[in-house]
Amino acid sequence: MRDPRSVRCTYYLESEMEPAKAAAIMAGEQSSGTFLPVPGESARIRERHAAHIVDVQEFGFCKPSLPSRANPEKVRAALVTVDFPMENVGTDLATLQTAIAGNLFELGDLYACRLQDMVLPEDFVAAHPGPAFGIGGTRKLISDVQGVMVGTIVKPNVGLSEEEFRLVVRDLAMASIDLIKDDELMTDPAYLPLERRVAVATEEIRAAEQVTGHATMYAFNITGDLAGLRKRHDTVVEAGGRCVMLNIPVMGMPALALLRSFAEVPIHGHRAGLAASMRSKALGMDYRVWQQMARLAGADHLHASGLGSKFYELDAEVAANIRSLLEPLGQTVTPLPVLSSGQNVTTPGPTFEATGTTDLMMLAGGGVAAHPDGPGAGVKSLRQAWEAAVDGIPLLTAATRRADTGDAALLHAVQTFGKGA
Amino acid sequence: MRDPRSVRCTYYLESEMEPAKAAAIMAGEQSSGTFLPVPGESARIRERHAAHIVDVQEFGFCKPSLPSRANPEKVRAALVTVDFPMENVGTDLATLQTAIAGNLFELGDLYACRLQDMVLPEDFVAAHPGPAFGIGGTRKLISDVQGVMVGTIVKPNVGLSEEEFRLVVRDLAMASIDLIKDDELMTDPAYLPLERRVAVATEEIRAAEQVTGHATMYAFNITGDLAGLRKRHDTVVEAGGRCVMLNIPVMGMPALALLRSFAEVPIHGHRAGLAASMRSKALGMDYRVWQQMARLAGADHLHASGLGSKFYELDAEVAANIRSLLEPLGQTVTPLPVLSSGQNVTTPGPTFEATGTTDLMMLAGGGVAAHPDGPGAGVKSLRQAWEAAVDGIPLLTAATRRADTGDAALLHAVQTFGKGA
Repeated sequence: MRDPRSVRCTYYLESEMEPAKAAAIMAGEQSSGTFLPVPGESARIRERHAAHIVDVQEFGFCKPSLPSRANPEKVRAALVTVDFPMENVGTDLATLQTAIAGNLFELGDLYACRLQDMVLPEDFVAAHPGPAFGIGGTRKLISDVQGVMVGTIVKPNVGLSEEEFRLVVRDLAMASIDLIKDDELMTDPAYLPLERRVAVATEEIRAAEQVTGHATMYAFNITGDLAGLRKRHDTVVEAGGRCVMLNIPVMGMPALALLRSFAEVPIHGHRAGLAASMRSKALGMDYRVWQQMARLAGADHLHASGLGSKFYELDAEVAANIRSLLEPLGQTVTPLPVLSSGQNVTTPGPTFEATGTTDLMMLAGGGVAAHPDGPGAGVKSLRQAWEAAVDGIPLLTAATRRADTGDAALLHAVQTFGKGA
Repeated sequence: MRDPRSVRCTYYLESEMEPAKAAAIMAGEQSSGTFLPVPGESARIRERHAAHIVDVQEFGFCKPSLPSRANPEKVRAALVTVDFPMENVGTDLATLQTAIAGNLFELGDLYACRLQDMVLPEDFVAAHPGPAFGIGGTRKLISDVQGVMVGTIVKPNVGLSEEEFRLVVRDLAMASIDLIKDDELMTDPAYLPLERRVAVATEEIRAAEQVTGHATMYAFNITGDLAGLRKRHDTVVEAGGRCVMLNIPVMGMPALALLRSFAEVPIHGHRAGLAASMRSKALGMDYRVWQQMARLAGADHLHASGLGSKFYELDAEVAANIRSLLEPLGQTVTPLPVLSSGQNVTTPGPTFEATGTTDLMMLAGGGVAAHPDGPGAGVKSLRQAWEAAVDGIPLLTAATRRADTGDAALLHAVQTFGKGA
C-alpha cells in the first residue's frame, strides 16, 4: 500500500553495490542522509523525513551505462521504488523536482539513474491548478472544432519580413487551419518583433474568419526574460490573440506556473531542449514523469513528438507518451497532446491505431506549406486523412474515392508525401 | 576568423551520414532550415539567418552512443563548429538556449549531440549584467576574509526543529565559519519555514559576530514558486541576511536572471539536477557552456562539484570546470567557484595543485560537523589544510607541526577523514 503522504518514484539504477544498498544511498542523498553520521541525526528525523525503499527488483549484471570516477567492467542493474515523504517537499514543484531529480544523477556510485515513473499524493496534485483550458477549452476557442485539430508552424521559421509573414498567415488562416504556431526559435527578434507579429497575425486571422467562419488560433511564442513575460502575454491578449507558447525546458516549470497564474488564453507547451535530459535511457526522467509536472504547472498543450517523426523516439514510445497525457491527474483538466515533426497524411492511420483518440493536435509543417495545391489543400488533405483513419479506410482508397468525386487534395498529398503509402 | 555577430558553438556529433551533411541538418533545424523546401525560403533568408558550418573534424567510425528510431551498427563521429547568427537570437538568454541546445538533441539522425563549447559575441555578453558581487563582493561581506573560504551545509539537511536548527547555526557561527548554506532540498517546509530559518539564523549569526568578530554568511535557499521569489528574497534581506540560494537547473536561467534584477545580496547558485543533461558525454552540454549562461544571468557563486568528491566527475574535469569559472567573460565580475561533496582536509592539496587559486569556497559537510573536537576545530583544520596546501607543505607534516605546538585540530581531522593522507 502506498503511503498517501509520500511521493512514489521508480528508478532504474546501476551500481557496483548491492542494489538495495545503492538504492539506500540514493534515497539518503535525496532526503535526510549524509555519508557520515552527524550529531543531531535523530531517530525522529529518520522516521519522519527519510525516503523509504519500497521495492527492489534486481536485473543482474550489465555494462555500466554512464561514466564515473571509477570504471568497473560490470555493474548490477535494478528497478527501485522509493517513497519520498511529502513533509520534505510540501506542495512546491521546484522542491519536488529537486528531491526526485536533483543531485542523485551526480552520484558516482551510480552508473545509471533514470526516473521512470512517479505517483504523486492527492494533496500535492490538488495544490496545483493544472491546465485552465485543455482539450475542451481549446476546441471552444477554435470554432468548436471536432476531431483531430490540424496546425502548422510558420515557415520559413526565421527570417521573414513583416510583409512576408503577413502573407504566410493570410494563406494559412484562409485555409481554415486550426492552429498556427511560431517556431520555438522565433521569440522577439529585432527584425520581426513579437508586437508586430501579434498585430499582423491577429489582423489577418480576424479578416480570414469573416470569410471562412473558422477561428484560427495562433500560438505566439512568448519565451524570453521573465521580467517581460506578463507584458508579452498582455500584448497577445489585448490584440485578441488566443494562445501563448512557452519553451518549457528552457524556461523551467516555475516560469510555466507563473504564466499560468495570469494567463487568459491557453498555454502551448513546447519541449525544445527536453531530450538533453531524456534521450539517454540511463539518465534523467521519462516523459510520463515530466508531463505530470508540466500539467500541474498549467500547460494546456504539450508537445509529444509524433509517430513517424524525424525525432529519436520510437513510435511505440511516442504513443505511450501521448497516452500518458490523457491519463487522469487528480481533478485537473486534460491537456491537448500535440504531435509534430514529419507529420503528413500518412501519419493519421498509424497514430489512430496506436492511440485510439482524436483528442489530438497534429502539426504539419511541410505537409501544409508544401502541398502542391497550396496550404488550403494541405489542411483539407490532413482532415480527410484523419477521417479515413477513424473510419478504418486505407489512405489510398480514401484518396482515390475523393479524387473520383473531383477532390484531389488527399491524392496529391499522398503522391507528394506518401512514399510509404 | 569568427564573425563578431554570431554565436560559435562546437558539437560532438555521431551520424550515419557524412559528418558535414549531419552538421548541415542540425544547423538547419536550429536556424532557417526545414526538411522540405518551402515557398518563401529565399536566398536572403538563408544568407542572413542560416547557421553556418565553420569546421568539421572527422573522427571515423564508432558505436552509436544514443538510441534512436534506427539502430545502425556503426556511425561516424565528428567535432563540428557552427556559427549561429546573432540576428536570430538577439540578446535573450532563453532564445540562445533554444537555438544552441533545443530541438537538436531530438534529431533521430544523430546518435550523439553534445555541445562542448560556446563563444558568445561581445554584444551578447554586454547585454547582461553578470554577477553583482562575485568573489570580491562576497569576501567583503564576510569580514574581508582572505584565502579559500570555508563553508558548510546545515546537517542533518532536513527535519530539524527550529530549536535544533538554532543550535546548529550557533555552533557553526561561533566557529567563525565563512558560509553556512541550506541543503538544496530545504526550501520552505511547514515544519521549519524559511521565515523562521531566516529569523533564527540571522539572530544567531549576529550574536556570534559580537563574540568572534567574524561575519558568517548564510545562503538561504529561496528556490520555489516565482510568484513568491521576491518576497522570499526580501524576507532574507530585511532580516539582515547576506546571501540567497537558488537551485538553478530546476528554476531555469530566466528565473536566475529575474532574481538578479532585484537581488540585494549575492546569489548562491546550486546545480541540483544539472547532471541529468550533462553526465552522458553524448548528450546535453559541457559545464563550460552552462556556466557562461549562469554567469550572464547573474550567479555570484557557482557549484562545481569538488576534487575527490562522491559525484561522478573526474578530478581533472572538476579542475577544468573550476578554471572555466575563472576565465574572463566580457566585463563581468568573476563568480566564486564553490566546491562541495566529500570535501575535507585532504582535498585542499590536490585542489590547489590542479587549480592554482585560492579564489574558492570549499563546503565541507561531515568535514566540519563530524570533526571529533567540534565544528570550531573542523573549520580551523580546513583553514590550516589550505595554508599547508598553498605553502607546499605535506598535510601530515603540517598537522604534526601544529600538534607539536599544542594545536591538534588538523591532526585529528587527518586521523578522522584522511584515510589516504
